[in-house]
Amino acid sequence: MKFKAAEADFIEMVKEKIGGNHFSQYIGIDIHRIAEGEIEATINLLDNHRQQMGFMHGGVTATLADVVSGFAAYTLVKRGQGVVTADLRVSYLNPGVGDKVYAKGYVIKAGSRMHFCEAEIWIFDGHGNRIDIAKSSSTMVVI
Amino acid sequence: MKFKAAEADFIEMVKEKIGGNHFSQYIGIDIHRIAEGEIEATINLLDNHRQQMGFMHGGVTATLADVVSGFAAYTLVKRGQGVVTADLRVSYLNPGVGDKVYAKGYVIKAGSRMHFCEAEIWIFDGHGNRIDIAKSSSTMVVI
Amino acid sequence: MKFKAAEADFIEMVKEKIGGNHFSQYIGIDIHRIAEGEIEATINLLDNHRQQMGFMHGGVTATLADVVSGFAAYTLVKRGQGVVTADLRVSYLNPGVGDKVYAKGYVIKAGSRMHFCEAEIWIFDGHGNRIDIAKSSSTMVVI
Amino acid sequence: MKFKAAEADFIEMVKEKIGGNHFSQYIGIDIHRIAEGEIEATINLLDNHRQQMGFMHGGVTATLADVVSGFAAYTLVKRGQGVVTADLRVSYLNPGVGDKVYAKGYVIKAGSRMHFCEAEIWIFDGHGNRIDIAKSSSTMVVI
Repeated sequence: MKFKAAEADFIEMVKEKIGGNHFSQYIGIDIHRIAEGEIEATINLLDNHRQQMGFMHGGVTATLADVVSGFAAYTLVKRGQGVVTADLRVSYLNPGVGDKVYAKGYVIKAGSRMHFCEAEIWIFDGHGNRIDIAKSSSTMVVI
Repeated sequence: MKFKAAEADFIEMVKEKIGGNHFSQYIGIDIHRIAEGEIEATINLLDNHRQQMGFMHGGVTATLADVVSGFAAYTLVKRGQGVVTADLRVSYLNPGVGDKVYAKGYVIKAGSRMHFCEAEIWIFDGHGNRIDIAKSSSTMVVI
Repeated sequence: MKFKAAEADFIEMVKEKIGGNHFSQYIGIDIHRIAEGEIEATINLLDNHRQQMGFMHGGVTATLADVVSGFAAYTLVKRGQGVVTADLRVSYLNPGVGDKVYAKGYVIKAGSRMHFCEAEIWIFDGHGNRIDIAKSSSTMVVI
Repeated sequence: MKFKAAEADFIEMVKEKIGGNHFSQYIGIDIHRIAEGEIEATINLLDNHRQQMGFMHGGVTATLADVVSGFAAYTLVKRGQGVVTADLRVSYLNPGVGDKVYAKGYVIKAGSRMHFCEAEIWIFDGHGNRIDIAKSSSTMVVI
């Protein structure tokens, strides 16, 4: 699915916002791809990110989903506009094991008032197979 | 709504689990009330918890909701059982401003296979009025 | 929680809309209480409303939740405005048995752009005890 | 994504269940493809399916999503087991106009206790372009 950014310099817009996103930086989310309506990121799982069973905490998963989805929506708005999450749903498909987690957020329906987004969170197991950790859907409101 | 814990020492069970929950401790969630099917917690908002507009990051909100809901469900299971989040939906009602955030998670339907939970996240404004920041609903699976 | 209708004749506004809502009438939803930010309705369960195990079909439950929530939001908008469901989540708490089902929808946060709503669906068992069938949360957008 | 049915005659199993699903038949859902972890259906939109603005009622959309997702999960269980919806979330992407609506439900993660499903609901506009009406995600529990 392809969407059109409102501003030619949407990549710069996103990079400026990332700098001010304290919590995202605090937990170490690295956004490494910015495209129209799509964001990809990774996080290196440290002990601080885990829950009592050693798996990635569901809050880290939700944060990743929120960040890549919100910025995916943000790539499509005009300079001066912002995006806030109205609602976020995360389905926890498999335990988050391993050391490096991948996330992709993307817009599934763009609008002037709202953007509907999804995000996928996954790892690779020891054999290089992708294991899905979570899938999210969200309603992002343009303000 | 009242539920019955399976174990008399459910408060001890929860306290043991909290100790191993790295991410929850890392971001400073303080669980201060443990009852049958109900958990209350607070978090002191630091700069690290905020997004680019200075509000509590949606990931912190989701983490709070997940923690108080998951532990609320955990108060009802037998020793040796665990609880994992199958699905979490968060509605972001108002921006998370201020310095101290309150959270309450509770079971709305208990079952042998699943517990359905809700959580409320709020602050108090300068006049002592409660402002709702978020409401969540979740499906917690007993394992 | 109390909200303020934008129009004095919001009850008339809702009644006019109900008349044009074919599907709601087709399956027999009876809206019997209209208040500011709150709607109550009932449905008499017929065989047509059931699934293969004899319980109320999850689609009927979702329809009830959507109708009472959407109209609850609609009580708060100005004449000429409308409300559409952006997102609806239903938690199915207990099987829908029995002959008469009750539903209540209410706004939990009103706004100029969006209304966040919840709905409760329940029955009474043979002893007059309320059994919760479902709980929903939804994001309603003002257009 | 590919899943494996537990029973060789899973298509027969689904067809037997469809016969008993009164509400699904009442509103005219036609399931025309049954595969392992995947169900496709259509519905001819009649006036009875519409809301006050002439669009497909959100309850019909939710019912379609629930039916194709639930049966998609049901293709994977053993004879004698059943599937119930624990939670269903529907994002309403575009108004449901037109006369024929298409739906596809599919399992995104299969498990012994739960199946996570998604569903897509769409129409074709006058030029043969697919327009997405809704996307859903759901947690289906094996009983």
